[in-house]
Amino acid sequence: MVDTTRLPAPHNAERPGTTPVIDPSVDTGPIKVAGDPTGPTIDLESLGRQLLGTWADLRVAARELTARPELQRIEGLSMAEHRTRVFEQLHLLADNGHVHRAFPTHLGGENDHGGNIAGFEELVTADPSLQIKAGVQWGLFGAAVLHLGTRPHHDAFLPDIMNLTVPGAFAMTEIGHGSDVASIGTTATYDPATEEFVIHTPFRAAWKDYLGNAANDGVAAVVFAQLITEGVNHGVHAFYVPIRDETGAFLPGIGGEDDGLKGGLNGIDNGRLHFDQVRIPRANLLNRYGDVAADGTYSSPIASPGRRFFTMLGTLVQGRVSLDGAATQASAVALTIAITYGSQRRQFTAASDTDEEVILDYQRHQRRLLPRLATTYAQTFAHDEFLVKFDEVFSGKADTDDDRQDLETLAAALKPLSTWHALDTLQEAREACGGAGFMAENRLTSLRADLDVYATFEGDNNVLLQLVAKRLLTDYSRKFATADAGALARYVVKQAADRAYHGTGLRRLTQTVADFGSTARSVGAFRETNVQRELLTDRVETMIADIATALRPAQRLPKAEAAALFNSQQNELIEAARAHAELLQWESFTRAVESTTHAGNKQVLTWLRDLFGLGLVEKRLAWYLVHGRLSAQRAQAISSYIDRLIARIRPHAVDLVDAFGYSQAHLRAPIVSGIEKERQDEARAYYRALRESGTAPAMEKTVKAGPKQ
Amino acid sequence: MVDTTRLPAPHNAERPGTTPVIDPSVDTGPIKVAGDPTGPTIDLESLGRQLLGTWADLRVAARELTARPELQRIEGLSMAEHRTRVFEQLHLLADNGHVHRAFPTHLGGENDHGGNIAGFEELVTADPSLQIKAGVQWGLFGAAVLHLGTRPHHDAFLPDIMNLTVPGAFAMTEIGHGSDVASIGTTATYDPATEEFVIHTPFRAAWKDYLGNAANDGVAAVVFAQLITEGVNHGVHAFYVPIRDETGAFLPGIGGEDDGLKGGLNGIDNGRLHFDQVRIPRANLLNRYGDVAADGTYSSPIASPGRRFFTMLGTLVQGRVSLDGAATQASAVALTIAITYGSQRRQFTAASDTDEEVILDYQRHQRRLLPRLATTYAQTFAHDEFLVKFDEVFSGKADTDDDRQDLETLAAALKPLSTWHALDTLQEAREACGGAGFMAENRLTSLRADLDVYATFEGDNNVLLQLVAKRLLTDYSRKFATADAGALARYVVKQAADRAYHGTGLRRLTQTVADFGSTARSVGAFRETNVQRELLTDRVETMIADIATALRPAQRLPKAEAAALFNSQQNELIEAARAHAELLQWESFTRAVESTTHAGNKQVLTWLRDLFGLGLVEKRLAWYLVHGRLSAQRAQAISSYIDRLIARIRPHAVDLVDAFGYSQAHLRAPIVSGIEKERQDEARAYYRALRESGTAPAMEKTVKAGPKQ
Repeated sequence: MVDTTRLPAPHNAERPGTTPVIDPSVDTGPIKVAGDPTGPTIDLESLGRQLLGTWADLRVAARELTARPELQRIEGLSMAEHRTRVFEQLHLLADNGHVHRAFPTHLGGENDHGGNIAGFEELVTADPSLQIKAGVQWGLFGAAVLHLGTRPHHDAFLPDIMNLTVPGAFAMTEIGHGSDVASIGTTATYDPATEEFVIHTPFRAAWKDYLGNAANDGVAAVVFAQLITEGVNHGVHAFYVPIRDETGAFLPGIGGEDDGLKGGLNGIDNGRLHFDQVRIPRANLLNRYGDVAADGTYSSPIASPGRRFFTMLGTLVQGRVSLDGAATQASAVALTIAITYGSQRRQFTAASDTDEEVILDYQRHQRRLLPRLATTYAQTFAHDEFLVKFDEVFSGKADTDDDRQDLETLAAALKPLSTWHALDTLQEAREACGGAGFMAENRLTSLRADLDVYATFEGDNNVLLQLVAKRLLTDYSRKFATADAGALARYVVKQAADRAYHGTGLRRLTQTVADFGSTARSVGAFRETNVQRELLTDRVETMIADIATALRPAQRLPKAEAAALFNSQQNELIEAARAHAELLQWESFTRAVESTTHAGNKQVLTWLRDLFGLGLVEKRLAWYLVHGRLSAQRAQAISSYIDRLIARIRPHAVDLVDAFGYSQAHLRAPIVSGIEKERQDEARAYYRALRESGTAPAMEKTVKAGPKQ
Repeated sequence: MVDTTRLPAPHNAERPGTTPVIDPSVDTGPIKVAGDPTGPTIDLESLGRQLLGTWADLRVAARELTARPELQRIEGLSMAEHRTRVFEQLHLLADNGHVHRAFPTHLGGENDHGGNIAGFEELVTADPSLQIKAGVQWGLFGAAVLHLGTRPHHDAFLPDIMNLTVPGAFAMTEIGHGSDVASIGTTATYDPATEEFVIHTPFRAAWKDYLGNAANDGVAAVVFAQLITEGVNHGVHAFYVPIRDETGAFLPGIGGEDDGLKGGLNGIDNGRLHFDQVRIPRANLLNRYGDVAADGTYSSPIASPGRRFFTMLGTLVQGRVSLDGAATQASAVALTIAITYGSQRRQFTAASDTDEEVILDYQRHQRRLLPRLATTYAQTFAHDEFLVKFDEVFSGKADTDDDRQDLETLAAALKPLSTWHALDTLQEAREACGGAGFMAENRLTSLRADLDVYATFEGDNNVLLQLVAKRLLTDYSRKFATADAGALARYVVKQAADRAYHGTGLRRLTQTVADFGSTARSVGAFRETNVQRELLTDRVETMIADIATALRPAQRLPKAEAAALFNSQQNELIEAARAHAELLQWESFTRAVESTTHAGNKQVLTWLRDLFGLGLVEKRLAWYLVHGRLSAQRAQAISSYIDRLIARIRPHAVDLVDAFGYSQAHLRAPIVSGIEKERQDEARAYYRALRESGTAPAMEKTVKAGPKQ
């Protein structure tokens, strides 16, 4: 477990209130450059362990697995070959138990939810198709049986799911309804005469679509449908439905199509399913949250249909958890490739006549890669805490309604940012490697193509952020339903900052807004943790307060006008949710810095955290200026301080990516295999020999200038 | 030709100096909504012609060609199949003369440079691989013979190049040197004894790489190498080098490798070439800008080796020109798909209990797509003017050194922005179409994968922008080499704004900075053309002036320190170049608005231009605040005015993409074929029938609430 208590601050650390105020616009000495013996040094071993996080040993073991060529992607396979290969790889995973950790111990699992996700995430470096196909089988199809079913379902279905005797689809999404699951059209109507449910697709838009395992391999499916019994629709429930016979043919009443080629993840056989009055036994209703008796009577442990629906969906949050981790790993791989290459590749002579510059020494190249490295660090630390939270909920250690709601809000906040960040980082890394980055062998384009869909599956990123914003608004309105606008300024934090993950709702200022304003305007102290916290927290707070104020008239408006008013704030709402998520990441990064004991690591991580935090402020600088939180002078100082931070971090860039711990077997990009340096050494030796031989041709320019001019 | 003279302003147009000042923060009336009969209407016919631009008829004809299935991409082909197909398609293009317009009339061409590029750009909607492979053959390999060779080369080589008897590679880039062409390692040493050049690859890093036609199809290549004669290196020159015999085997001394699979463009056989003392006749030097006599004497019409090099490279600018156009077309296709789908797809009931909202009615969805539409319009207009400029230079109509330099600066400014915009827009469109956007059949992922490399080939985008910035700095320092900082404030425009494209260097304010400051602070007038122009111009001016000031000490520093100082400004330099390029786009858009005569079109285009211009200001709002150009209050008004503009444009969104003029044969995305609407109509009919039948199940919530609660 991560130690979330504050460690005693070492002598060189910043302590709130006691840190001397330093003006970042004043140059406090020469920038530490590569090889400067007076600069901090990184201890790779301990930084590496810190990045591996709570399930470090398990991740190390998983990386031994993903280093095995038989689990790795081969670029350029046809879709059919890739699907076959991935399905075979799934059998390897089933055979070695890598994917069984979350299942009950009495069935051979380990009931280890956090460890299961940690191991699962690591598969992304082998092949994202392998990861997601495994996710469909054990994380969606299997997990639905586990979490929505009860003991008889576990005993009947899970063994064959675990060992892949029964590959299955997770049939939730329909062509007509993706994000709005509650509105799916498929029906499951109970027939008491035969004690069966009749699964039916009433129209084309209700075809299930984009389902992994549906096109070829699926033998069964968990089908989500509107449960209707005794003339009442009880909302969406899940049903276990066999779909193919032993020859691979669809069972009677079931049809489907292959989704065919996709933008990525072509090792997965996504497809469509539809049902024509397909009868299944009553017992095939996964009945943990809703059941139908033989006579058709419906019952549920959760009275409210709305709450029941969200509880059921909430059990499937692990998809979002794991995407957050996998996307962060893909970003780390991309930056390891681009920063390693950038530290070896040379282009243009700038500072001398003979030696070309290493491209990572160009300021623009640093600006392209190092802030993304800082974000990837923030995400790595945030993800580990997120996974701990997930594990606490699913292991039952901390499993109240509030815990579950917090977990879902956290998932809805972090998954969008990390999946978008992965796409952005993979693309920047690709461009930073030039033409070589576009070669499939260097993996960046292929990873990007595969991860593209991470932004919209398991919850569309924009829809998820809107959920977060609604939660923030709810928290806000609970506090201020009747209060005046000035109340916010008097609103003081109820929770200690270091327990922030305990509740993930609306963040609170550690000081009042009024106090904060004057703090920020005092002589610059951007490197002070509390100043960064306040800048980031204040923005979330204020945005939500402003939106809440704008939305206040909605209560008195007819539905259509209220909807129009809400819609007029939608973009701002989503931006507020993003600001909240960024704050969560910053808080995790800060806790990680605070728990770091090695002085060199702590110094470099502090710079990197500052780069992340101040980078967020720089991106939203207009907001801080417009709202009077920063003066123009101070705002300019932020950018120049960021330049300074980047220059300080530059000498540690290679260490910082090495600390992610990927070997050549995980990177598998020839440009970082050492051949770039080898080629340059050969070229430089050639020119040196040529100069020394005295046979080198003179340059026209030199000849024209003559010996003395 | 575009009419670049100012049309008389119609009664409702804004005229500089006479426009009433309107405060945009004041609501001036209800927003026009879809179907509002009092709102403007678009005349699709005339808007469509305007977007097609100067070579409208030629583009229409080219689109008939690209609508032919045999020229279109088939998704999911293997690399080998795709290569074969594209090579066959190239023969179709050669046979119908589509790609011969730029070649000399005496060889069957039309000596039509602008028209050639216009027709070439249209190929992107058929298959980017087809486009780029055609570009390699006729736009690089053929164009190098045309522009760097002389009449004997034309007569000897061009006929077989034009008819594809001799497919060829353009062998410039080496593994070790991409952006820095001057530093390539390949040598061409003249041997007067045999009157031959000896082409040689001295080390591994000097292998030519990423060359289209090199892996399979190339029979010859134009090879760039350091020309060495009589012991002097005269710099990079181009040589015509046969590489394969009639059996397809490499000729003696020549070797190569296949680049294999790439992130996209897999219909092109990119590969590597290397040369071991390969002898070619003296006459194979493409000798327009540098020649070697039989005895080895070197001569050139351009004395300066540096100017000679840039002149030679400058003849190849058409690659950048065409990428700007092709990338803009890809953006237009992406937005046509996403906006059409967004206007048909429904999700979530917000405003009523039964009808789901069209997703383009959500504010966030509008914010994602409509500003990108505005940028695509700006690029479309800017590209047409760019192409006119290109045509004037290459037809000899306006072909001074200054014209050529302006053209290159324009290319270096516009190509980065439009290629990045295409990637960004294709991705946003993909996500805006959800899972359907990820299906290869809907083309967004495949177009994105293909266009990825547009950001780094034909000049890395960051390197190009740095070139632009250096030009801006040169312009600036010529004016202010000895002036004090106050000089800028007294610097008044020398060129009329409507002749902006005549020179593409540093933009000038139409008023002094001092005047401008007070203008911007007066009551809001963001919709006034001159206010937008001044805001955008001022930023470029000031950024360049600030950088120039920061760099001034460099003249007195040793080379390494001067390089470090320059490097400390590199990021800001590139941002200044981007601001300059955005201003160029805005100016083109403004001229297009001004030349529009149809009142409805003019109104909607004005809104769209305002969205583009104010969107640029909003993105850089912090700069305007920090530099005192906008007050906090005015800055906030910009965002709310943008919200208002987007709401006004929304009802015209579908017209605005329809005006791009792509048919289903060009879009080829099933999601915009009408099936989405068909499925929804079927679903709604089903529910309507169910409600009317009286057999619809009651909702649990309703049942529980009871009849009266």
